[in-house]
Amino acid sequence: MSRFFSSKYEKLIPYTPGEQPTEKKYIKLNTNESPFPPSQKAQEYVKNAAKSLNLYPDPECRALNKKMAEILMVDEDQILMTNGSDEILNFAFMAFCDKNHKAAFPDITYGFYSVFAQLNNIAYEEIPLKDDFTIDINDYLGINKTIFIANPNAPTAIALKPQEIEKILATNPDNVVVIDEAYVDFGAKSCVGLINKYDNLLVTQTFSKSRSMAGARLGFGVASKAIIQDLNTVKYSTNPYNINKMTMAAGLGTLEDEEYTINNCKTVIENREYTKKELLKLGFELTDSSTNFVFAKHSDIDGKQLYLDLKKKGILVRHFDGERISQYNRITIGTRVEMEILINTLKQILEEKR
Amino acid sequence: MSRFFSSKYEKLIPYTPGEQPTEKKYIKLNTNESPFPPSQKAQEYVKNAAKSLNLYPDPECRALNKKMAEILMVDEDQILMTNGSDEILNFAFMAFCDKNHKAAFPDITYGFYSVFAQLNNIAYEEIPLKDDFTIDINDYLGINKTIFIANPNAPTAIALKPQEIEKILATNPDNVVVIDEAYVDFGAKSCVGLINKYDNLLVTQTFSKSRSMAGARLGFGVASKAIIQDLNTVKYSTNPYNINKMTMAAGLGTLEDEEYTINNCKTVIENREYTKKELLKLGFELTDSSTNFVFAKHSDIDGKQLYLDLKKKGILVRHFDGERISQYNRITIGTRVEMEILINTLKQILEEKR
Repeated sequence: MSRFFSSKYEKLIPYTPGEQPTEKKYIKLNTNESPFPPSQKAQEYVKNAAKSLNLYPDPECRALNKKMAEILMVDEDQILMTNGSDEILNFAFMAFCDKNHKAAFPDITYGFYSVFAQLNNIAYEEIPLKDDFTIDINDYLGINKTIFIANPNAPTAIALKPQEIEKILATNPDNVVVIDEAYVDFGAKSCVGLINKYDNLLVTQTFSKSRSMAGARLGFGVASKAIIQDLNTVKYSTNPYNINKMTMAAGLGTLEDEEYTINNCKTVIENREYTKKELLKLGFELTDSSTNFVFAKHSDIDGKQLYLDLKKKGILVRHFDGERISQYNRITIGTRVEMEILINTLKQILEEKR
Repeated sequence: MSRFFSSKYEKLIPYTPGEQPTEKKYIKLNTNESPFPPSQKAQEYVKNAAKSLNLYPDPECRALNKKMAEILMVDEDQILMTNGSDEILNFAFMAFCDKNHKAAFPDITYGFYSVFAQLNNIAYEEIPLKDDFTIDINDYLGINKTIFIANPNAPTAIALKPQEIEKILATNPDNVVVIDEAYVDFGAKSCVGLINKYDNLLVTQTFSKSRSMAGARLGFGVASKAIIQDLNTVKYSTNPYNINKMTMAAGLGTLEDEEYTINNCKTVIENREYTKKELLKLGFELTDSSTNFVFAKHSDIDGKQLYLDLKKKGILVRHFDGERISQYNRITIGTRVEMEILINTLKQILEEKR
């Protein structure tokens, strides 16, 4: 820390992204990336966009918004594209939280929510999940706070139904409720269809998981025009050209190739069901996953130890130190071959323990 | 505005980027873009990077930092890459300004500084330029504020010498001095060589102008390790994967092709000198430009009117409404052919006025 760093950040602990090691080749099941390359059309559009990088991108993202609006059946001005969904989540903390609008989210959820709250000097309440890691929606009814819920939740992988979320929306009419649908395409139901019914709803999604674009950084929010207008005020006061030309092009190509995305999601779901079945056979306990990862523990081996053993054998998964989840690992669903290697490696590790 | 928008942003007026019209084809001399395409190597690297967009980028930007460190002759951990230089400027306002560290910058400068100050709720002083639009460095000696100076300044195009900036650095040892060198490659002298002498210096640069990468969004800061560490704390609390894979690849390709950048800058400088000579012949008054634009006014025609007349004739330049500069237009230096068209069009407009 330099002697110039503002004291307001004295206690700020930044987010720790998943490992991105370069020293050796791993089977990477630690950051919930897609095992499939981006769509061919996305790659072609990027190549073309690269020719005119000397010119600024369209700060309004018009072509991309138009296509996305068609797909989601909303208006173009109900969408805001951002540099990954982290950016729109931060914008939401900035725009809709302050002294009079504290934040609330589950105690076990995307680790960045508490970082955004701290960064923006916002008081927040972490509401404990139930023992089975599900969200008790009663904890969120009429709490008069700006609510952030990842649905499906991470790293627990469990989804709420839109009807349950509606109860939260209806009982907190004076606060924005942010539903972070980073993983929604792997089997959960989206709340996008509710944005015209609830003016306090902001849905965020990302191209990083189902659309094979983690490396391109593209996320977005869908909400009432008024909420999007506020988020645009924050965007134009932060970084008007937040989306570069190549990412915009990749996004458009991907959206024009929705069939590819849909098929990839189907394959991930099949691979997940295979993996769940095999893990259960090996004696693992699992949460009910609607995502492209599973959350698993085994009574014979400590969570951290399993992470380390897998790493030694060339497979990276994600382990979190949080007290309630330290026995678990979050394992991304990769290709069928990768999952077979995972299962065989786990068998081996468990046998070595016996 | 929605009824949920935090009152802390009530008075926030976002930055207005230059026009990016799509309704007709203009000669675009309004956003200081390079008239030259990005380097071939950059384009090739992008094409390759697009194949693996399903994987996250390296949040540490190691390959890019390494190459940039070589070129600038600094250490890798004295550099931070950001999503355009707007991002690092905002990070600097966040990290180094607060109640006890107010901001100061010229009254006529990059319009985003005051927006960043407002966004972050930071009190700021706008120090008037002299009548000739130069900075009086005496105004900045020992002022005990976090200082932001664009060097060369925009839209005035005038540069300070590093020796002058050293006086500001030396007399404000307890405050960070940010030197925003967006336009430094067109004839001014960089302060990067001073970072090991002054631990309160942060130099920011961008790939948008001299490196033909406005569409890729890549900026960076160079400073002491401690300052870069603070800015990294802000980055990892905001958007750890702030630079996407394609931009990283384009940046690396461009840096491996420095000769191309250097030659393009030479051509821009030649075209600028040609443009200045011709504008003077037409009776324009000009500031002493060290940038890829000129700042010009003519006693026969109102600044706003000239902007409108040029637009009607298919040439976009940038006009600012600020009281002291409303008679001026900021005109980007394009290709020789574009500048010849500009000069002929201006002749025509001036003749029509007579």
